[in-house]
Amino acid sequence: MKVQIIGIGLIGGSFALDIKSTFPESKIFGTDADEKNLEQAKELGIIDHPAAIEDVKNADVVIVAVPVDVATKLIIEVLDQVEEQCLVFDAGSTKSGLCKALATHSNRRNFLAAHPIAGTEFSGPEAAIPNLYRNKTNIICEVEKTAFKLQERALEIFQRLGMRIRYMDPVSHDRHIAYVSHLSHISSFMLGKTVLEKERNERDIFDLAGSGFASTVRLAKSSPAMWSPIFQENKENVLETLNEYINNLTHFKELLEKDDFREIYKEMQRTNHIKSILNGIN
Amino acid sequence: MKVQIIGIGLIGGSFALDIKSTFPESKIFGTDADEKNLEQAKELGIIDHPAAIEDVKNADVVIVAVPVDVATKLIIEVLDQVEEQCLVFDAGSTKSGLCKALATHSNRRNFLAAHPIAGTEFSGPEAAIPNLYRNKTNIICEVEKTAFKLQERALEIFQRLGMRIRYMDPVSHDRHIAYVSHLSHISSFMLGKTVLEKERNERDIFDLAGSGFASTVRLAKSSPAMWSPIFQENKENVLETLNEYINNLTHFKELLEKDDFREIYKEMQRTNHIKSILNGIN
Repeated sequence: MKVQIIGIGLIGGSFALDIKSTFPESKIFGTDADEKNLEQAKELGIIDHPAAIEDVKNADVVIVAVPVDVATKLIIEVLDQVEEQCLVFDAGSTKSGLCKALATHSNRRNFLAAHPIAGTEFSGPEAAIPNLYRNKTNIICEVEKTAFKLQERALEIFQRLGMRIRYMDPVSHDRHIAYVSHLSHISSFMLGKTVLEKERNERDIFDLAGSGFASTVRLAKSSPAMWSPIFQENKENVLETLNEYINNLTHFKELLEKDDFREIYKEMQRTNHIKSILNGIN
Repeated sequence: MKVQIIGIGLIGGSFALDIKSTFPESKIFGTDADEKNLEQAKELGIIDHPAAIEDVKNADVVIVAVPVDVATKLIIEVLDQVEEQCLVFDAGSTKSGLCKALATHSNRRNFLAAHPIAGTEFSGPEAAIPNLYRNKTNIICEVEKTAFKLQERALEIFQRLGMRIRYMDPVSHDRHIAYVSHLSHISSFMLGKTVLEKERNERDIFDLAGSGFASTVRLAKSSPAMWSPIFQENKENVLETLNEYINNLTHFKELLEKDDFREIYKEMQRTNHIKSILNGIN
């Protein structure tokens, strides 16, 4: 199996590692806009060979793992060149725009729109880790638009990598993901900003901050090159969630201002219920 | 060494476990407003004997680990009864009001105001764990007001439990902690609330949420009985941080509304710098 991975960072690189160990006969070809990434991926043993985009015509599987602002154009370029038996899938965090843009492509059936809910706050080939996808959810959109045989091949890869599959339409996907992923990133980035602005003396932050703070601002380490395009692509949904979040914070602030600690207590108590939901995640 | 711990939850119980293993000759007496907690602490082997508040007159060390709204009154009650050689310290997340209230107490020198930056999102005796305090910062306020010999005893306990000590005045403590701890809790609770309100179908949250979401809302599992009084005690500082946080989120929203993704990128890039600070925590 010839697998070409375009974008050899955390996501693409982790696919490379797992596919190589799960399908030992496979050859991994790597493509990246950044020559340094490619060299590093080669040195780290993540890919077998560097490759150009045009080489997708020889591939059995193409995985596109690049920021969502360049993904659409790139996937069209790939679909333009692939052979009939080639499976192309992506791993991006937004799906509506992409699916719409590909809807009328003559090779649409070669493509499967995927979003593995997996990652860390790090990026680049050195961030790639084995088993990143084990026990993680992989959301597949518009599965009916992908050729049966290629659906089968994709499912085999996903299952052997240990993923749980969930099917969803692209519009619902983008709406849900705005809540459980995109908003968390904004909340974390702005929390980090607020504290950094205040605490000029970093030594103080370092000394006084505990694991709670670290956990809440962990996502503020994420890559702006990856996240800025996500917010752009999913702007309307993100704005909606952000408005609701700001409203909830403002309401909490008003309760605090009028010393309504009974209601503050209740607000927290009602939200405690999130425990039972989170127990299922990691 | 007779150690009486008032409030046998996560914080008090974890002190009990470590003191018992570090000072094997010590006897741990437990006091709690909730009879069930006491029984459970006894069953779990966290305390040797239940005790009443009045028993503090026989104690060498008294640790007060109760919500901050009842701590002040309770510490006064304890100080009223302790012998000259008894060390009393607390572990509360707010310090200004407490230190002011105790300033003129005739036994002020028996008291040491402490705040170990340690904890988890869980509570109660069953949440108590060994080594909770290892490599954690312990902030001590107004150390000069504690008797020399009792400072020494406290430092010995803190050092043998593996804590790093940092001295700070109570007003600075409350201001700094509002940023690196109290605000994180509000941000997390309101994020949890926003998502719960939207996603009536919990199964969807569970399936789509990844470790990033889990990390950002982890603190929303925290105890309202502990946190509502903290927000009350530190109201002015918390309001200030909350205002700045809401302003930063609103600014981000405005950038999004006017499609200024260059500036959104820069905002995130500037905050990425928090990486180097967080590397020191955990």
